[in-house]
Amino acid sequence: MAETRQWRLASRPSGEPTRENFELVTVARPTPGDGEVLVRTLYQSVDPYMRGRMRDADSYAEPWDVGEPMRAGVVGEVIESNDDGFESGDVVTGELPWAEHAVADGEELRRVDPDRGPISTALGVLGMPGVTAYFGMTDVAEPKPGDTVVVSAAAGAVGSVAGQLARLSGARVVGTAGSDEKIDWLTDELGFDAAINYRTTDDLPGAVAEACPDGVDVYFDNVGGPITDAVWPLLNVRSRVAVCGQIALYNATEIPTGPRKLAKLIESRARVEGLLVRDYEDRRSEALERLSTFIADDELRYRQHAVEGFENAPDAFMGLFEGENVGKQLVQVADRND
Amino acid sequence: MAETRQWRLASRPSGEPTRENFELVTVARPTPGDGEVLVRTLYQSVDPYMRGRMRDADSYAEPWDVGEPMRAGVVGEVIESNDDGFESGDVVTGELPWAEHAVADGEELRRVDPDRGPISTALGVLGMPGVTAYFGMTDVAEPKPGDTVVVSAAAGAVGSVAGQLARLSGARVVGTAGSDEKIDWLTDELGFDAAINYRTTDDLPGAVAEACPDGVDVYFDNVGGPITDAVWPLLNVRSRVAVCGQIALYNATEIPTGPRKLAKLIESRARVEGLLVRDYEDRRSEALERLSTFIADDELRYRQHAVEGFENAPDAFMGLFEGENVGKQLVQVADRND
Repeated sequence: MAETRQWRLASRPSGEPTRENFELVTVARPTPGDGEVLVRTLYQSVDPYMRGRMRDADSYAEPWDVGEPMRAGVVGEVIESNDDGFESGDVVTGELPWAEHAVADGEELRRVDPDRGPISTALGVLGMPGVTAYFGMTDVAEPKPGDTVVVSAAAGAVGSVAGQLARLSGARVVGTAGSDEKIDWLTDELGFDAAINYRTTDDLPGAVAEACPDGVDVYFDNVGGPITDAVWPLLNVRSRVAVCGQIALYNATEIPTGPRKLAKLIESRARVEGLLVRDYEDRRSEALERLSTFIADDELRYRQHAVEGFENAPDAFMGLFEGENVGKQLVQVADRND
Repeated sequence: MAETRQWRLASRPSGEPTRENFELVTVARPTPGDGEVLVRTLYQSVDPYMRGRMRDADSYAEPWDVGEPMRAGVVGEVIESNDDGFESGDVVTGELPWAEHAVADGEELRRVDPDRGPISTALGVLGMPGVTAYFGMTDVAEPKPGDTVVVSAAAGAVGSVAGQLARLSGARVVGTAGSDEKIDWLTDELGFDAAINYRTTDDLPGAVAEACPDGVDVYFDNVGGPITDAVWPLLNVRSRVAVCGQIALYNATEIPTGPRKLAKLIESRARVEGLLVRDYEDRRSEALERLSTFIADDELRYRQHAVEGFENAPDAFMGLFEGENVGKQLVQVADRND
């Protein structure tokens, strides 16, 4: 009997996730029922939001059950289809288990066009992170020409796209990131006007203030915590804060505290708004078209890094919290031509 | 030579303002120049925002200078006019010094119609607090029928109007206040669906949650601090937070800290926005017309309390931070018929 491997949630982490929270199990390869498709995973995504699903608490994502496979964005190849919309060899994407093979309802899958670029981009710049950045910028942050836009985790999968979109809208863009390699990438390749390495800066508030002499009109926040504290006092009148992620807080074991921020909103009449990409599901194609065009015109650049081997998925995930990834972090589970 | 009295800022408070921060001085009564008007103060307003002006720091209001008269909303009587638009006996309102008499440019004054109701309401329900509540609700908070709306400092000058406007828009309204007298006023006279005495409640988060079984769609915040912390976890998807005031924090001597709040915005996609009434100056008459109509129809009720005697203005101001006022707090400086 054909087998496959899955990563299951072994236990809920307290603080930083550890290898012990994950369990690799070998199970019988599932067979697709009526309307279902068997997918062989080629690439699996790891994303910061998954930390919320490991927690047994209110989050924007349903918590995962202990003992069950975790779920992820996957790009895979159809190897058996009982859905008229798909046939063997099709490249598809969807939310599937952390598994080498998985069965999904055809309706949960979207086709990936291999002619559009590397298929793995369907998990990055042309997937959830890119679409998040697009709607976060266009619908929530709304940068205008001449605005100063700050993006935290600017070298991440979302932030790198968000910052470039702000630049394309005519704004001055400042990013924060955690290594000199990332800083160089932001300023030398992505066209950021300034970038701050928050790990090596003695005076983060001073560094942000210096990079933003005219204050901050848009803050696209992926991080929270001290970086956000540094940006907050600089918020201009009628500025916008798009809250996309708070990765600095996801591993907290107690309710994180920090400077109270609401009084500043009175003075600035700033608007602070959270965003979740799933609210924009019906406008997804708008985002993908714009992003594809920008990429084709070399207006938008991306980087992604694939850890090889399904067995390394937990390490790839845990690396997100160390800031290891430049651009999108993936796991390459299999080669399409294998 | 005719004299008048002024309250000047003697020193900047550290923490709660004290009587020593204020100095009562007698000076020559000013004479109006060209285009100017001499006003005899009848009522003077005291408002929480003034605490920000006592501070030598960034605030939405310019800081007052030590040694100079403080400024306030005033309703007064014209006793000498060099502006064609005003004549002796006119009742006017404007921002003037804390003084028994003051000179103002005619352009800084607005006429008050004594037939519209008590002239002192031009400092309350038909003045800055009422207009703030109106635009905060209609433009920022946008309650919809069936929404649950929470108002903090609900028995204050702004909160009492804000809560009733929410009720008039068909929402369920919950208020917080600091005395049983206020609670009774909110529920028995103003039509609030529930009200919580935050001073006598052992478990504020529990009490707010119990009063809001369907979560919170709108939070109109005048207070900040622990009351806001109690409301925050209840914010519903696409809820709105109008940040109007943070009186709980105005006397802080160190940067106040509290639970970090931005992660909740991702889950809820809540929008948090600060508001300042001066942004709505050109729509002021819209608000006054609506509010007057509601009052005439007994759909909107108000209370105000005037401390008598100009010499008591600092006490009236300091009382705001003790939550002494039910509705609008005024100082009656003179009687119109004196």
